[in-house]
Amino acid sequence: MKSSITVFMRFVVLVLVGLLMTSVVEAADRDKLLSDPGIYGTFAAYGLDADWRKQNQAMRIAQLTVLKGVVEQHREKVAIDVYLLRGLSDHADLLFRIHATELRDTQQFLLDLESSLFGNHLTRAIIMHGLTKKAIYVPGFTDQAKANLKIVSEPGPNPYAIVIPIRKSADWWGLDQEKRTAMMQEHSEASAPYIKTVKRKLYHSTGLDDLDFITYFETSKLEDFHSLILALEKVKEFPYNRRFGHPTLIGTVRSLDEIIEILAQ
Amino acid sequence: MKSSITVFMRFVVLVLVGLLMTSVVEAADRDKLLSDPGIYGTFAAYGLDADWRKQNQAMRIAQLTVLKGVVEQHREKVAIDVYLLRGLSDHADLLFRIHATELRDTQQFLLDLESSLFGNHLTRAIIMHGLTKKAIYVPGFTDQAKANLKIVSEPGPNPYAIVIPIRKSADWWGLDQEKRTAMMQEHSEASAPYIKTVKRKLYHSTGLDDLDFITYFETSKLEDFHSLILALEKVKEFPYNRRFGHPTLIGTVRSLDEIIEILAQ
Amino acid sequence: MKSSITVFMRFVVLVLVGLLMTSVVEAADRDKLLSDPGIYGTFAAYGLDADWRKQNQAMRIAQLTVLKGVVEQHREKVAIDVYLLRGLSDHADLLFRIHATELRDTQQFLLDLESSLFGNHLTRAIIMHGLTKKAIYVPGFTDQAKANLKIVSEPGPNPYAIVIPIRKSADWWGLDQEKRTAMMQEHSEASAPYIKTVKRKLYHSTGLDDLDFITYFETSKLEDFHSLILALEKVKEFPYNRRFGHPTLIGTVRSLDEIIEILAQ
Amino acid sequence: MKSSITVFMRFVVLVLVGLLMTSVVEAADRDKLLSDPGIYGTFAAYGLDADWRKQNQAMRIAQLTVLKGVVEQHREKVAIDVYLLRGLSDHADLLFRIHATELRDTQQFLLDLESSLFGNHLTRAIIMHGLTKKAIYVPGFTDQAKANLKIVSEPGPNPYAIVIPIRKSADWWGLDQEKRTAMMQEHSEASAPYIKTVKRKLYHSTGLDDLDFITYFETSKLEDFHSLILALEKVKEFPYNRRFGHPTLIGTVRSLDEIIEILAQ
Amino acid sequence: MKSSITVFMRFVVLVLVGLLMTSVVEAADRDKLLSDPGIYGTFAAYGLDADWRKQNQAMRIAQLTVLKGVVEQHREKVAIDVYLLRGLSDHADLLFRIHATELRDTQQFLLDLESSLFGNHLTRAIIMHGLTKKAIYVPGFTDQAKANLKIVSEPGPNPYAIVIPIRKSADWWGLDQEKRTAMMQEHSEASAPYIKTVKRKLYHSTGLDDLDFITYFETSKLEDFHSLILALEKVKEFPYNRRFGHPTLIGTVRSLDEIIEILAQ
Repeated sequence: MKSSITVFMRFVVLVLVGLLMTSVVEAADRDKLLSDPGIYGTFAAYGLDADWRKQNQAMRIAQLTVLKGVVEQHREKVAIDVYLLRGLSDHADLLFRIHATELRDTQQFLLDLESSLFGNHLTRAIIMHGLTKKAIYVPGFTDQAKANLKIVSEPGPNPYAIVIPIRKSADWWGLDQEKRTAMMQEHSEASAPYIKTVKRKLYHSTGLDDLDFITYFETSKLEDFHSLILALEKVKEFPYNRRFGHPTLIGTVRSLDEIIEILAQ
Repeated sequence: MKSSITVFMRFVVLVLVGLLMTSVVEAADRDKLLSDPGIYGTFAAYGLDADWRKQNQAMRIAQLTVLKGVVEQHREKVAIDVYLLRGLSDHADLLFRIHATELRDTQQFLLDLESSLFGNHLTRAIIMHGLTKKAIYVPGFTDQAKANLKIVSEPGPNPYAIVIPIRKSADWWGLDQEKRTAMMQEHSEASAPYIKTVKRKLYHSTGLDDLDFITYFETSKLEDFHSLILALEKVKEFPYNRRFGHPTLIGTVRSLDEIIEILAQ
Repeated sequence: MKSSITVFMRFVVLVLVGLLMTSVVEAADRDKLLSDPGIYGTFAAYGLDADWRKQNQAMRIAQLTVLKGVVEQHREKVAIDVYLLRGLSDHADLLFRIHATELRDTQQFLLDLESSLFGNHLTRAIIMHGLTKKAIYVPGFTDQAKANLKIVSEPGPNPYAIVIPIRKSADWWGLDQEKRTAMMQEHSEASAPYIKTVKRKLYHSTGLDDLDFITYFETSKLEDFHSLILALEKVKEFPYNRRFGHPTLIGTVRSLDEIIEILAQ
Repeated sequence: MKSSITVFMRFVVLVLVGLLMTSVVEAADRDKLLSDPGIYGTFAAYGLDADWRKQNQAMRIAQLTVLKGVVEQHREKVAIDVYLLRGLSDHADLLFRIHATELRDTQQFLLDLESSLFGNHLTRAIIMHGLTKKAIYVPGFTDQAKANLKIVSEPGPNPYAIVIPIRKSADWWGLDQEKRTAMMQEHSEASAPYIKTVKRKLYHSTGLDDLDFITYFETSKLEDFHSLILALEKVKEFPYNRRFGHPTLIGTVRSLDEIIEILAQ
Repeated sequence: MKSSITVFMRFVVLVLVGLLMTSVVEAADRDKLLSDPGIYGTFAAYGLDADWRKQNQAMRIAQLTVLKGVVEQHREKVAIDVYLLRGLSDHADLLFRIHATELRDTQQFLLDLESSLFGNHLTRAIIMHGLTKKAIYVPGFTDQAKANLKIVSEPGPNPYAIVIPIRKSADWWGLDQEKRTAMMQEHSEASAPYIKTVKRKLYHSTGLDDLDFITYFETSKLEDFHSLILALEKVKEFPYNRRFGHPTLIGTVRSLDEIIEILAQ
């Protein structure tokens, strides 16, 4: 019986939210934003304040409708993904990943989000920025190492997402390009066995934040992800990470409608 | 007279809570979850907010009934243990240890817990995840060292539980497997005298959190536990711990009914 | 239609704020304050409290008028710039940069700001002080290195501003002036390619704060700024930075009227 | 006149509190708890919340009566000392030192304290646990060094108490017992001149907390205590302290009645 | 017109506060407390809570009168200086510096302050203690170095005050007295050019706090103070500072009446 109530609630929430969304907005070229170099990626994690749950459900649904509206309105310019950290992380409840060609567009989205009726209940936890770039060390790799990188990850949904920020030591940047390339090739070889089941994406943060990189992972097999990071801890490049995580953000990939449904209940 | 009031209160609380729990839920295979490799173990510690005690007892009992309901409902899929940190720890009041085959099931339990009427009074303190795995170094141990590990810990209740998260230094992972095995055998020998009175369980956290391991201990003899950790500080593997504790969580093992009774009063 | 409402709102806000500002204040010699040595530069970042948004718009506009009044009143003595961190930073919402010949004048401005009706909603996040000085190492540079520094940055608005505080290691100060000059020349050469698109300004903080320098950047090309910092991480002077960032403050350059308009909505 | 009001208030408070305390509880063997090895010592520091002072005096006195009741009730099993940190420390207002043969008894006291009407106004700051043990290094000392330790501290009240937690480096535990004994003898000799005026007590914390030791001092001559710690900073064992203080808790030794009187006013 | 209102307000506030202060208290021998060795110096910094400004002015003036009363009452035993950090520091609003022959007297003053109606609005930020002592290294200095120390600082008001806490490394204390004296002489020579314009005072904190020293500075020329600290960063003793600042407290020297006037408005 629990499920049938859930199904009904899902219906009610989505209809209510749907009724209030009348305009159709043309989406940004999401595929390009998610694959091109030169794109700014922002990770913004928020908690929900203590007052959120104290409101009645109608109020919460009204505010979630506002959330949906703000997201829809900005899909013209930016690509927005949402993640549920609540229940897996002590850092925050929600994570937004925003891709944009200009960081100003991301600022405008987060401004509108934070200033909205829903945003009144958000407490800012973590905002990190990075930039996508063409692979720096790959051109210097051996052919075998290059071939490894062409393995395609398995299609299908990846319920888990993990974000690990990284700061390199000054020693790392003091090494010449050749030495760094050799170490990154070893790094790349160590991760080869996990390419199929763990999707990765790299953002360059130097100057934009107190980081050098943001590494993003998606997987349906958390144990493989664990083995991947363990393998990376054993390569010669690892000791050059002055900060690895702190925080590690772990959550589940969710559609905006799923998030709305969970928060409405 | 104090005791008789306590006994009566215990009766009232349990009857009230009992009356509201009508459905019997089939429990997950708790034994398998607690002993198999490949199981995810989550440690989630919460504080109680300042408003909790300001409510009258009837309200508190109603909310504790909700807590019981949430736990019962999820026992189908996950194994849940509860610990009382309050009075021994400045980090939190309650600790939940959850074992699950999929971290999503743990997330769903903690989502339902945090979103419940009782959850409105919880403040998230610490959430850590680990994975149980087959012993990694033991196959390389001498027969004597292997024999040590077969000593069975004394039966009977162990009132105290201690959780110590560990992060290894990059140097540790840079050592070859043989050197690490030799050091872990010395580590194992140092702990042999305490196996009978201090139960241990190990979780592998690399990638799932800013940790490499979560070590969990149960004992009725805290002095033996103290001697165990002191012995471990003296072995060659110890300097490879970049983080040991921070926090060390210390509390007492309690049944859910005991927790409910304590919080109801 | 959204834009026309925005335009109308902008009109209403500015008229309301304008009506209340009757006195014309003679501004401090802003150009001198922004270019002379021996000037104190203060970076003061504030958050807006949770009550700010809970007020109705008329109340918010009244308080923003007070903000404008406080800023206008102090423009006699100090040069004030404002930045919007909200939406790009998890550290604060607003950043004020104040230049003054005496730090007392800055204190008086921030006192009046914090004690105003608008200031009641500000939570202090970060206050840092520095002093502008004549270039210390440049006299020892080669002619080529000196010429590099004369490249003029491109005119036009630079929407992004970044503030990075720096603390040198004790080793740095232990080096003799000649060695430091050689390293700063390499530092200067590494940044030459980015002088056109990234404007910089340096403040000396030793003793005034737990820092040695505050570095301030403005750019319309964040990717160039990223490349600049990456280039600086590779020079021999970089390992002598004990603290670099922590926090890195990133925001957008805004006029006070823009800030008022954004906060009024 | 101020004093006579104070005297009258002291009378009123103590009479009110006294009237409500009817049962006489047999105290635990306090002397044994304070001198035997194998005893658990807990240091629990609390702040008072902002609401405490906003209550009228009658309410505060009622709650302080509850505090007295909780302490009295547990004196059967545990030895409780109280210290006033307020006015000397930014960490907390009150410090309880509890000695017990079982940590469960301490937990029960702090549970009852935190759950009481008075406890509703306490905010948990720091809880640390240690264990008293027989002197470990003394048997290896020279006769002269042993003799030094027999100097008896001067009788009489010691108004000041200082608590310094210590964590040894991994290097310390890696030294053999003989080397550690030699260094502890030097440590002991350095402290000899201050034995008369500075009382000390040592608790072993390894495993029970993120510490190795809790050192407790009482003195009426703070300058001697300062000289003692300065002397200890100069011995060869000192660099093996990875953490020394952080926090250092400084306060004054008070009877429960004095604490009640101060908080009632 | 602004000034005439200010003058009138100053009159009103001081008259109101004055009317309520009837008793004249004999002050402690302030000169001796500020110059003798063996005196305890306490630095206590407080913030003002968010409710402070929400009160009407009459209420605020009443509470400031209480502040004045508490300070006057304790001037019998302790010397109290006040500083305004608000507007220059993100750590606190007010700083009290208290000199006393016994730390108990300081505790009594801060107890009365924190427990007063005004104190209800104070949030404790930082409390640090130190002890004045005769110069330790000077007797070993050369005659020239000794002569340097006899330069008298220029008379007249010094509007700025800076407090820098210091912790030495274990290596420092491991050096013999002679080596430390040589380094302190170099330190002293480096500061000689700034003695005239930067007044200094040293407090020894070892054991009383997580510090070894509190250094206190007063100046009307902040640029000289900056040059002084920069000069000290270049001497051989500087790398032995494990902590220097953190926090650096910067504010302006104010009379209690000025503080009251500022907070009343």
